[in-house]
Amino acid sequence: MTLATDTVAPLSAHAPGMPIVTVIGDGQLARMLHTEAIELGLSLRILASSPDSSAAQVTHDVVIGDYLNLDDLRRVADKSSVITFDHEHVPNEHLEQLISEGYNVQPAPSSLIYAQDKLVMRQHLAALGAPVPEFAEISSVSEARSFWHSVNAEVCIKARRGGYDGHGVWFPRSETELTELVSKLLAAGTLVMAEKKVPLVRELSTLVARTPSGKVKSWPVVESVQTGGICTETIAPAPGLEPQIMQRAQELAIKIATELGVTGVLAVELFETTTHTGETEIYVNELAMRPHNTGHWTQDGCVTSQFEQHIRAILDYPLGDTSPVAPVTVMVNVLGAQDDPQLPMQQRMQEVWQRFPEAKIHLYGKTYRAGRKLGHVNLSGTDLVQVRRNAQLAAGFLAQGCWLDSAREK
Amino acid sequence: MTLATDTVAPLSAHAPGMPIVTVIGDGQLARMLHTEAIELGLSLRILASSPDSSAAQVTHDVVIGDYLNLDDLRRVADKSSVITFDHEHVPNEHLEQLISEGYNVQPAPSSLIYAQDKLVMRQHLAALGAPVPEFAEISSVSEARSFWHSVNAEVCIKARRGGYDGHGVWFPRSETELTELVSKLLAAGTLVMAEKKVPLVRELSTLVARTPSGKVKSWPVVESVQTGGICTETIAPAPGLEPQIMQRAQELAIKIATELGVTGVLAVELFETTTHTGETEIYVNELAMRPHNTGHWTQDGCVTSQFEQHIRAILDYPLGDTSPVAPVTVMVNVLGAQDDPQLPMQQRMQEVWQRFPEAKIHLYGKTYRAGRKLGHVNLSGTDLVQVRRNAQLAAGFLAQGCWLDSAREK
Repeated sequence: MTLATDTVAPLSAHAPGMPIVTVIGDGQLARMLHTEAIELGLSLRILASSPDSSAAQVTHDVVIGDYLNLDDLRRVADKSSVITFDHEHVPNEHLEQLISEGYNVQPAPSSLIYAQDKLVMRQHLAALGAPVPEFAEISSVSEARSFWHSVNAEVCIKARRGGYDGHGVWFPRSETELTELVSKLLAAGTLVMAEKKVPLVRELSTLVARTPSGKVKSWPVVESVQTGGICTETIAPAPGLEPQIMQRAQELAIKIATELGVTGVLAVELFETTTHTGETEIYVNELAMRPHNTGHWTQDGCVTSQFEQHIRAILDYPLGDTSPVAPVTVMVNVLGAQDDPQLPMQQRMQEVWQRFPEAKIHLYGKTYRAGRKLGHVNLSGTDLVQVRRNAQLAAGFLAQGCWLDSAREK
Repeated sequence: MTLATDTVAPLSAHAPGMPIVTVIGDGQLARMLHTEAIELGLSLRILASSPDSSAAQVTHDVVIGDYLNLDDLRRVADKSSVITFDHEHVPNEHLEQLISEGYNVQPAPSSLIYAQDKLVMRQHLAALGAPVPEFAEISSVSEARSFWHSVNAEVCIKARRGGYDGHGVWFPRSETELTELVSKLLAAGTLVMAEKKVPLVRELSTLVARTPSGKVKSWPVVESVQTGGICTETIAPAPGLEPQIMQRAQELAIKIATELGVTGVLAVELFETTTHTGETEIYVNELAMRPHNTGHWTQDGCVTSQFEQHIRAILDYPLGDTSPVAPVTVMVNVLGAQDDPQLPMQQRMQEVWQRFPEAKIHLYGKTYRAGRKLGHVNLSGTDLVQVRRNAQLAAGFLAQGCWLDSAREK
């Protein structure tokens, strides 16, 4: 551990004798990590782009800087016990440099590469024998066309890097569209891959956490509802999922975490599909190496949330109990509506709580923008249909300022 | 609301359009209020005595100052939507002044007086018909002696103001001791009252939250285990409590909250006793108008914790569901041992989690001091005896660095 004699951030912000956990990032994931850190007697240090960002609003030890800048990374790393992330975009060469200077980076860049480059991930998972859709590296239009024909035009084109929430994923409807798309992407210098479209029954997500010393724990597999490429809803556990598929998905996520040397939380997003003989199959879609939207339900639905577990895991502490505390928990995202409702957010919260005193509202301190993740609602109970409906109504009202069931419209 | 044009604290620390909630105080209660504030999209402003205090470590908007100083109170009040407390020691004349300047203080000093002066509380509760032990104002040694004889020497002497955690409470064993004690206290200018000792079966605690517009919700009544005047343990719900006593206690707390105009969380500490005919009786012991140690179990044991509820209540928002999420939740305090264990706290946490992955550890970021409240452990389950034992073991190890069951000693 490097122990420089000067530090920009106040050491007074940390309990004496306790580790300093640094998060590169200032979004809602860093914010919710701080919530859990507080109760564990810790307080995060964060690298933030601005003092009014989601996580900076609520933390004491904020370093303003750019995660692309090695010097800024060094400033925030100084005296940290461990450095982690709320996104995958820190240049790996900077992380390697920090490690060579003695800093403890979790997860390591050697693992992060698999969450950064979809082609590298696909190739490695295929080599491990993990189920992945048919795929190909695309470095020319002719390669794209050849893949198109080999999979009967069921093609999905992906940018290898930088995609999120549906960005960087395209579904060309004709060979002409494919040609135009790939030409444009390659001309712009975008690294491209192609995948065979999976005939989707639904999307699942398996979260696990792993420590540097190799302990792993998984949460129940959830159904992840996507709208326009954005996760809008999570149902925990995934309704009607066959127990052997639940187990296979958990074992797969544990295997991936272990083989890739992931530390902290790993989200394995899965496609559920049905073979022509009627059997359920799963394929790996994406990996994320940090707390994940499909794990927000654990805040109110499990003994140990993904945020507490991530902190415990990267510190190489024993992992917590991941048992659910209710038969069903549904998480629904609050996404910025087309127009910001006239009714202020604090009025919307009150209306929601008036109707659903049991709704757990989580807001990120963000200003409104259409489609932006502003918060989420968790709701637990026993009756899936009712819990899901109520969670949708609550989140819908927070987003739009009106009830989605017309009987209650005002 | 006064809207001065200058402010010492960064408005960037608060989400645009959301209320600024100010807490006078920097201890663990303010810290845990901040935890819940974050998830509601808020961030607290606090008035702290130092930048490394428990709550200051984890909050962005920290005003350093003295809660006895009106100008410091004005600085932290500036632009606040509501001002609340983590202790009862702010001078009421300062609070009245803030109110006259347009600030929103919850609870109001007209209610707080009943949590500040035990005699005023006793007199008012007696007038309301609430069950209180026999009591008397003591302004001379002869009054003390006269009370001593009237209650057959079953006397407890209390300082009317400033007592906490067993401080300010005395049990003289003879008339000579009584005389010496009361002479000394009166000579020192301490305001004194006397109470008849209640033949205690156990102590109970009822928490309720009330909004300025008069909505009230209660949590299940708990048993509060006291050692040397300090709450060491809470068992929720109180084991074997007759349903009609549970209901009577809740109705009593609601009545007190309503009649005294309390806003936010009110803790009503009760004595449970048995009449000579074998019936269960309850008496009011103390009142606290803020989140209370006997409510820490709600963080992990209820849909809505006392900290979230306090914030909702003082903002006059609808109150949350107070249902328990498990049949039994036990809270055990982590009190500084006689000597600070050699094993560092972060090692102790790991040992505890190794044995009890389900233990919810809450630490306050405080330096060690013998007898100091450093944190607490919440544990939920179905088997009271086992849950209680495990919570005691976990908190015991955090405090002392050794297992209280010898078989596991190391």
